[in-house]
Amino acid sequence: MQNTKDYQLMIEQALKAYLPQGEFTEQTLIDSMEYSLMCGGKRIRPLLTLLFCELMGEDVKKALPFACAVEMIHTYSLIHDDMPCMDDDDYRRGKPSNHKVYGEDIATLSGDALQSLAFEIMTSNDVLSTVDATLALRATNTLAKYCGVLGMVGGQVIDIENEGKRADITILQEMDEKKTAALIKASCEMGCIIGGADEEKINAATQYAHSIGIAFQIVDDILDVTSTSEQLGKPVGSDSDNEKSTYVSLLGIEKCKQLVDELTDKAISSLEVFTGDTSTLKELAISLANRNK
Amino acid sequence: MQNTKDYQLMIEQALKAYLPQGEFTEQTLIDSMEYSLMCGGKRIRPLLTLLFCELMGEDVKKALPFACAVEMIHTYSLIHDDMPCMDDDDYRRGKPSNHKVYGEDIATLSGDALQSLAFEIMTSNDVLSTVDATLALRATNTLAKYCGVLGMVGGQVIDIENEGKRADITILQEMDEKKTAALIKASCEMGCIIGGADEEKINAATQYAHSIGIAFQIVDDILDVTSTSEQLGKPVGSDSDNEKSTYVSLLGIEKCKQLVDELTDKAISSLEVFTGDTSTLKELAISLANRNK
Repeated sequence: MQNTKDYQLMIEQALKAYLPQGEFTEQTLIDSMEYSLMCGGKRIRPLLTLLFCELMGEDVKKALPFACAVEMIHTYSLIHDDMPCMDDDDYRRGKPSNHKVYGEDIATLSGDALQSLAFEIMTSNDVLSTVDATLALRATNTLAKYCGVLGMVGGQVIDIENEGKRADITILQEMDEKKTAALIKASCEMGCIIGGADEEKINAATQYAHSIGIAFQIVDDILDVTSTSEQLGKPVGSDSDNEKSTYVSLLGIEKCKQLVDELTDKAISSLEVFTGDTSTLKELAISLANRNK
Repeated sequence: MQNTKDYQLMIEQALKAYLPQGEFTEQTLIDSMEYSLMCGGKRIRPLLTLLFCELMGEDVKKALPFACAVEMIHTYSLIHDDMPCMDDDDYRRGKPSNHKVYGEDIATLSGDALQSLAFEIMTSNDVLSTVDATLALRATNTLAKYCGVLGMVGGQVIDIENEGKRADITILQEMDEKKTAALIKASCEMGCIIGGADEEKINAATQYAHSIGIAFQIVDDILDVTSTSEQLGKPVGSDSDNEKSTYVSLLGIEKCKQLVDELTDKAISSLEVFTGDTSTLKELAISLANRNK
């Protein structure tokens, strides 16, 4: 098991190298893509792809294009999400959002091109020379499915349509399953697929991803309430002015904390079918549940 | 050789069937995708994919997912192109643009989801059961490359950056090569790839696509001038108020007509390496050059 820091460095270098190198007429577009892609994110999704590939005993370099692809999809979704016609966020990770720097037209196209690039790198000749074509095709299909109309993008639409509404827990779960967990599922499943996993192991990776994905979202809701309450001097868990349903507003904070623990346990126990060293994946599930920002 | 009308019907039916069937929470998204996808376009790109596959003597049904994928990419680019932050067009093919009906947020996501769906259908289990995985991967990579940062999207950025400028012929050619010809190249090359063509034939398809793509754009410029002049009662070819460079403004209308003829001849002669019946592809090149709208 390599240190996750080594993997994160490998991901940073590969992401940068996948952008067109040299000087091009459309340099602004490439600069805009690089601005958002090389932004110092935590790279959790690509890390999961590499960790599951390693767990299957396969060379992680084979999974690297797929790991980078999922990060490109994540990045494009953030660029489009920040646009004035969507969440209208001027900042992302403490820096001006892509459209604030490059304009809305270039930001739209930059997101579009990052999505194309994700699919380009998963299907390249380099991949064909190291990965079985059937596995590469299956992994590519997995990402396409989870990021599209009934996956991540679908989740964003459910989110938009429930703004200002008190959505019930079923809608909230479907939204988070698609908006957040879907891309994490793609990450874990692709690592397994490239690693040559059978259906049982791929399903276990899906279960792990589902559990940490939903736990991640519930922790987000808890942190929103606790940090807002701290800022406002209000008791933790008191009603916020925001009408939008969250796990905390629907279930209360204690029930939420219990759910996070249950989901983390479930994520960890889903790893039992693997014979390799699952310690890093276990630690990752625990650290995501216990994070404080 | 089947009638192109039969192929166009096949494409219409397949496009519709590739959209999620049933009732979903994100139904608005699916409706929005369908609104733009099933808009009665001429389907030239997918038709080219089928015609080149047929020319290689292969069952065109194998190329159908790739044909539909290129139409989905074309459609997503039109949705994003019409947005207020881009060309700000309220109408497309005589109907309100996607964002005028569904709002800018859904239109953005609808374009995003159409791009994902294009890649999903080219890598599906259905494809794997009929097409060699290596060929499917290569065709998918071809579309990804031509529609992305150094292809269609790059061409759109070059277009944006040259608005209000008098671009020279080199920039104009690069822009049209990427913005228009790239996706036509993808269409023709994918048909060849799925049909099992060798490099010589794939290159010939690229040359055909390049020639009809650039000719198409020059005809567009000619029609813009002749129809505007007719409307304004000005002599054909006189200076327009629009500062943007076009083939007509740079080369004059007679030289443009000559270029279209040369490119059409070149497109037709590039088909000589094929042994099958190329009559429909020849007719298509001629009809695109002689169109009057």
